[in-house]
Amino acid sequence: MGTILEGLAASGLEAIIDQGEARRAEHARDWWARNELLDFQGTPSASPLAVVTPRSTEEVSTVLRCARETRTPVIPYGGGSGVCGAIQGRPDAIVLSTAGLDGLISLDDGDLLATFGAGTNGMAAERRVQEDGLTIGHWPQSIELSTVGGWIATRAAGQFSTGYGNIEEIVHDLVAVLPDGSVVRTRRTPRSAAGPDLRQLFLGSEGTLGVVTEVTFSLRPLPEASRGQAISFPSLEAGIEGTRRLMRAGFRPPVARLYDDMESARNFEGACPDGRHLLLLLHEGPEALVAPALPAVAKLCAEVDGTEHDAAVVDHWLERRNHVPGFRGFMEKGIILDTIEVAAPWSRVAELYHAVVSSLREVEGILIASGHSSHSYRSGTNLYFTFLARPADAADMARTYDECWRRAMEATLACGGGIAHHHGIGRVRRDFLADEIGTEGVETLRAIKRVLDPEGLLNPGALIPGE
Amino acid sequence: MGTILEGLAASGLEAIIDQGEARRAEHARDWWARNELLDFQGTPSASPLAVVTPRSTEEVSTVLRCARETRTPVIPYGGGSGVCGAIQGRPDAIVLSTAGLDGLISLDDGDLLATFGAGTNGMAAERRVQEDGLTIGHWPQSIELSTVGGWIATRAAGQFSTGYGNIEEIVHDLVAVLPDGSVVRTRRTPRSAAGPDLRQLFLGSEGTLGVVTEVTFSLRPLPEASRGQAISFPSLEAGIEGTRRLMRAGFRPPVARLYDDMESARNFEGACPDGRHLLLLLHEGPEALVAPALPAVAKLCAEVDGTEHDAAVVDHWLERRNHVPGFRGFMEKGIILDTIEVAAPWSRVAELYHAVVSSLREVEGILIASGHSSHSYRSGTNLYFTFLARPADAADMARTYDECWRRAMEATLACGGGIAHHHGIGRVRRDFLADEIGTEGVETLRAIKRVLDPEGLLNPGALIPGE
Repeated sequence: MGTILEGLAASGLEAIIDQGEARRAEHARDWWARNELLDFQGTPSASPLAVVTPRSTEEVSTVLRCARETRTPVIPYGGGSGVCGAIQGRPDAIVLSTAGLDGLISLDDGDLLATFGAGTNGMAAERRVQEDGLTIGHWPQSIELSTVGGWIATRAAGQFSTGYGNIEEIVHDLVAVLPDGSVVRTRRTPRSAAGPDLRQLFLGSEGTLGVVTEVTFSLRPLPEASRGQAISFPSLEAGIEGTRRLMRAGFRPPVARLYDDMESARNFEGACPDGRHLLLLLHEGPEALVAPALPAVAKLCAEVDGTEHDAAVVDHWLERRNHVPGFRGFMEKGIILDTIEVAAPWSRVAELYHAVVSSLREVEGILIASGHSSHSYRSGTNLYFTFLARPADAADMARTYDECWRRAMEATLACGGGIAHHHGIGRVRRDFLADEIGTEGVETLRAIKRVLDPEGLLNPGALIPGE
Repeated sequence: MGTILEGLAASGLEAIIDQGEARRAEHARDWWARNELLDFQGTPSASPLAVVTPRSTEEVSTVLRCARETRTPVIPYGGGSGVCGAIQGRPDAIVLSTAGLDGLISLDDGDLLATFGAGTNGMAAERRVQEDGLTIGHWPQSIELSTVGGWIATRAAGQFSTGYGNIEEIVHDLVAVLPDGSVVRTRRTPRSAAGPDLRQLFLGSEGTLGVVTEVTFSLRPLPEASRGQAISFPSLEAGIEGTRRLMRAGFRPPVARLYDDMESARNFEGACPDGRHLLLLLHEGPEALVAPALPAVAKLCAEVDGTEHDAAVVDHWLERRNHVPGFRGFMEKGIILDTIEVAAPWSRVAELYHAVVSSLREVEGILIASGHSSHSYRSGTNLYFTFLARPADAADMARTYDECWRRAMEATLACGGGIAHHHGIGRVRRDFLADEIGTEGVETLRAIKRVLDPEGLLNPGALIPGE
């Protein structure tokens, strides 16, 4: 038994192997702030032994078969834009990049179906269907960086999810390669009751159960009407109640974002009076339904002291929504920062918000602890926290980072919240997974992992604790 | 190692065992027409050795542990209203009835969450939340007979699914017991990216992977407005096109049912001119959105020769929608009958309809082969076929039945359709499962089955071929 690279060469796949140092280093990690910090501090993540870039489902299958034969760990890699540390290199592993599975495979306007290679960049995919007047309707903040396969692997949510659903409601069918090299193709049917939904094995699997190679989306036409609305509330509690009421009544604006007073002032200066909590809505759909939605929602929100403001702030948000400052500039100033998204039923959201923010404020050197809700449901919403901290000694940045995360997770769990709304588990939340899905849930996941990947070769160390 | 009944008695659970002959016979099968036919012809399904009715999740866990220790097959049983043969007794098995897991556990109006024991009757659950002005919004035709746990196990769809979603979009969280007796509780959070969604293991599992014991639904308030609309089309193709257009535009009437000309005339005499194809819609939601939806939809449908009719026919359907004539009366006349639901992308729906109906018409003794669409999506719809046949020799009824099913499945597959929209696989579709999800899909399901249930004790013979 030779090495995996010898095996791939013997299979005629030498061309898909890249052992260049720069390329290996580029694929050594994702955007997890903690690994960026270690990198900044001079201990970068280990580079993989090679980056392998198969060009077809069949080649992915060959790579996984070779990996199994040679017992080589495989780290599937899409856009590398994850923020939880699901990608972390090791010198005995290959990175399997999906960059060779790129582009549109088919597009049917009548059926509103588009199939892309899993490595297709998210914005490229969206732009392609927009050429035909259609939209995928999935807008993660990472859309310029992430891939459509990564959306599946991370169980992503987009900024338009309140109306258009999360990725699990947008994906129609998919092709994936299992650790043994076999290829699962789910049927192109709008809905099925043919046993458990096999797409779900891959949604949220973070590369541990297989490699998604093709993704088909159920599209929408670009909306006939699209109209912003801005409403502010005197307290976070009133804003949560307004959002809850509009969801309960059956309105489904694709965008519904409620910012606390700090973020309202920081991000949207002058859009509402200081101290108020701003709700941004974007209504989309047929003109017949959008036009009457705005006054009806305004009326519901007025019942809890919601006041309308100039909707230009929604355009402002739309233009700037994917602008994220890099971590590096902060680190150079001794500041560590991150975002943490969780979720809870309506009745616990305010309590959870205050518990997390209060706990973060106890961290030495904390500069900012704030939050907003960005994905709402009939029964609850998410909260998306931002923290910045500058410990007295810059050498403590990693310790401070870990403390912020631990405090946010513990406060969330104490309030009955879910610890991961849409960024995933990776490594940053891995040790909290048993608190989320129970020991029995972790053991179930581990059992499925072991039967599909007995040697534990696919993305070891991500998602499942103790693997 | 004694018998399971001795084991249960030793665990203090003697009270939950019923070995009475009548009760065992009642639990020997579900409503699958083929088993009813065999029963009618004098060879009823075998009775189980006992019906065991645990009263708590803990007791379910004890039963499954005893079953594993004594290698006893266990057939989980909800309302027994399945129509695919997932329940079929055997003399060495116990039936685990969920009837002891009955009633409301909690109801939160603010969070729109209601938790029920899995054995709660569907209509009882719906009535309970309606007392508080809420609705589950899941209306399978079996609602008077089926249980909320059965809805999960079969991956059910309700008559209001076009607006309110299928069961997987209504279930919020659940509790299930795995074959080893361990208890999985999914977190009460509106959405999660904490690994693959464990609820999906049970949605569609048909009792083969575990026993659901509690189900929490995300409810809706009873709608402010509810308005019927009836539109007829000159051809099935025009009706499909009208339905496609209204879905594409973004309208989501909870009910959207398009009947072929035969069913339009048979079920709704006088509602539209003979030969036309009737679309029944029910719009629900806030008055602000329902009122403008009707004229907008009428306008869209008029573009493909859709003509509006008196909407009283929708009330007529609402009143009679769960009335299903028993099979037995037909069998006494030598007639075998059943319904078959499949699904396809819009572009293949008409072709699929004609292929199935034409193929069924070739069956000797066929009396009726007709269909309608009852659950629509952005990218396609289902088709729900009805067949009645009277073979020359009544002894051929089972053979004729099998032939009708085989023809419908083969024609569906030839048109790229999905073989099971919402009734499930059971035994009637089991041998077609590999055509639906591929050999690799079946092997994946089998691998998960074997790791969770290595002895193959949970509902052997249902769903997974060759188990």
